[in-house]
Amino acid sequence: MEDATPTKVTLVDIARMAGVGVGTASRALSNAKNVAPATRARVLQVAEANHYVVSPEASRLAKGNTGRVALVVPHLSRWFFGSVVEGLDSVLRGADLDVLLYHVGDVRDRHEFFERLPARRKVDAVVVVGFQVEDIERARLETLGVHIVAAGGQTAAYPSVHIDDRIASRQAVDHLVHLGHKRIAMLEAVDPDQPHLPSTRSPGYHDALAAAGIAIDPTLVVSAPWGGEDGAASMSRLLGHPDPPTGVFAHSDEVALGAVRTLRRAGLEPGRDVSVVGIDDHPLAALSDLTTVRQRPAEQGVLAGRLLLDLLDGKAPTEASTTVPTELVVRGSTAPPRRP
Amino acid sequence: MEDATPTKVTLVDIARMAGVGVGTASRALSNAKNVAPATRARVLQVAEANHYVVSPEASRLAKGNTGRVALVVPHLSRWFFGSVVEGLDSVLRGADLDVLLYHVGDVRDRHEFFERLPARRKVDAVVVVGFQVEDIERARLETLGVHIVAAGGQTAAYPSVHIDDRIASRQAVDHLVHLGHKRIAMLEAVDPDQPHLPSTRSPGYHDALAAAGIAIDPTLVVSAPWGGEDGAASMSRLLGHPDPPTGVFAHSDEVALGAVRTLRRAGLEPGRDVSVVGIDDHPLAALSDLTTVRQRPAEQGVLAGRLLLDLLDGKAPTEASTTVPTELVVRGSTAPPRRP
Repeated sequence: MEDATPTKVTLVDIARMAGVGVGTASRALSNAKNVAPATRARVLQVAEANHYVVSPEASRLAKGNTGRVALVVPHLSRWFFGSVVEGLDSVLRGADLDVLLYHVGDVRDRHEFFERLPARRKVDAVVVVGFQVEDIERARLETLGVHIVAAGGQTAAYPSVHIDDRIASRQAVDHLVHLGHKRIAMLEAVDPDQPHLPSTRSPGYHDALAAAGIAIDPTLVVSAPWGGEDGAASMSRLLGHPDPPTGVFAHSDEVALGAVRTLRRAGLEPGRDVSVVGIDDHPLAALSDLTTVRQRPAEQGVLAGRLLLDLLDGKAPTEASTTVPTELVVRGSTAPPRRP
Repeated sequence: MEDATPTKVTLVDIARMAGVGVGTASRALSNAKNVAPATRARVLQVAEANHYVVSPEASRLAKGNTGRVALVVPHLSRWFFGSVVEGLDSVLRGADLDVLLYHVGDVRDRHEFFERLPARRKVDAVVVVGFQVEDIERARLETLGVHIVAAGGQTAAYPSVHIDDRIASRQAVDHLVHLGHKRIAMLEAVDPDQPHLPSTRSPGYHDALAAAGIAIDPTLVVSAPWGGEDGAASMSRLLGHPDPPTGVFAHSDEVALGAVRTLRRAGLEPGRDVSVVGIDDHPLAALSDLTTVRQRPAEQGVLAGRLLLDLLDGKAPTEASTTVPTELVVRGSTAPPRRP
């Protein structure tokens, strides 16, 4: 349909002839949801009889919007971010919206995005993927005057979809406690682009130990950036501890896999000698027999996409913030301690 | 600058007053490359003196194009695809082009993309990322009448940037040969969306064995889809072989990591008992001490982006096809055979 040249019949004419509003006619022609089948059939019939041709530009103008959504995404090559984007893309494009990608590689790129706001006047909405929007960025973003949704990260200022980091961490550490571990370390990870933000996964570690009556030993908590190599280095430090841990809770699977490499290089077998649990259920966690707490980032993207469609349709979201549940996945990297 | 409402001075006026062509004025105002600093300064000065305001729409119209590029990407959550897109995005957005994302999850989504061509009339160019465009898809794509570039995959029909799969495989298998292995298996992987396409990484395996005077043993070649779990299953089959291999060449790191898990579960130590080499240098390969042949997908994205900019600028690319070199990275998963 988008091939032919536009005719002189306008969308307003079609809507009038079909006896529906312009919005409904537009949605029927663009195959969007929320149009009754009978209504859609009537609109299509009128359009066909009048040789009405939808052009993307005309459709856009009729809607009074751009028909585009911007995704602001750091670290697209990482599984978590790519998966959230996959979920978002499926829902947004399923609703005939175009997805404009703004990859921000690091904090400099991100600042430049918020400084220049290249999405200005090009989109109806912005989705920030997997990072916390800071106050100064928020002020800039809001000058766009469009809907804003956070996917895969918690940002009190905007409707968002995310896991509960505190519960996920608690699930991981409870598992070590239930296996009988008492010397439980945490490989705490900080986003190198936002090092001043507190770890969102430490409170669950504290909760679990407190509930088990285990005193916090601050020398068992090692902080580092969130990469796997950093996890490997943090684990090395813990191996040098005079009273080393028997169980290790890592911020993420990537950090946990770094710790596993250090253990193997030290001749220790994950699970048998030292238990390691992560968070994510990265596809390679299963290949590494890593116990973890599973989150589903593609699902977070899907839900964030739906939340955004509701906002664009003028509906208030039922929940400003949606928490997606997480679940423990037990594999070979955890077992009862050798010396409980 | 994009905040204010448009004034009556047009881009053509600005170009005339600055004594430059409209294209140059547009590029100067949009901060694109290929504008001499003095020219840019003059255009900006004229624009400022005349309260000229760039609107994205005006800028687009002045250029006579959409200012947008479509990326068609399967499997965005995988490191390889996400990395190629990161590289593409940095170059394209650096040239003030907008990037429209079309994620195609599987072969059905992909067919639907080529059937509906949602990018029609919305973009100046299409980049296909990491898959081989089939003839029927190609015919559809070409009805768009825009530039087409292939990134991270070889497609004879279009300018493309990719590695040489035959050389990369040869590097991997040569390494096993040089270590003294003679029973060398291949875990061949096929794209489940394109199972009829031959493996692009088998010819290098054959080359290396032929060069070493080792006869091909077809029972040592196991074909499966390209996931890690498939690699694990293929390795299990090889362990049941009456004369099992001492070295294993896996299609990719993901397949190799599946094989490593099978070996560990069977009480065998990668490197010491059976050598395993992959292709990719996935970030988790280093964390798994996996020997591999490194490719750099982000660099492939960058080069494909530059190739596309040349095409959009009306320059013929210097090379229709750019091959990015690969290199062997030796880690702990390979060693001389125990019984050479």
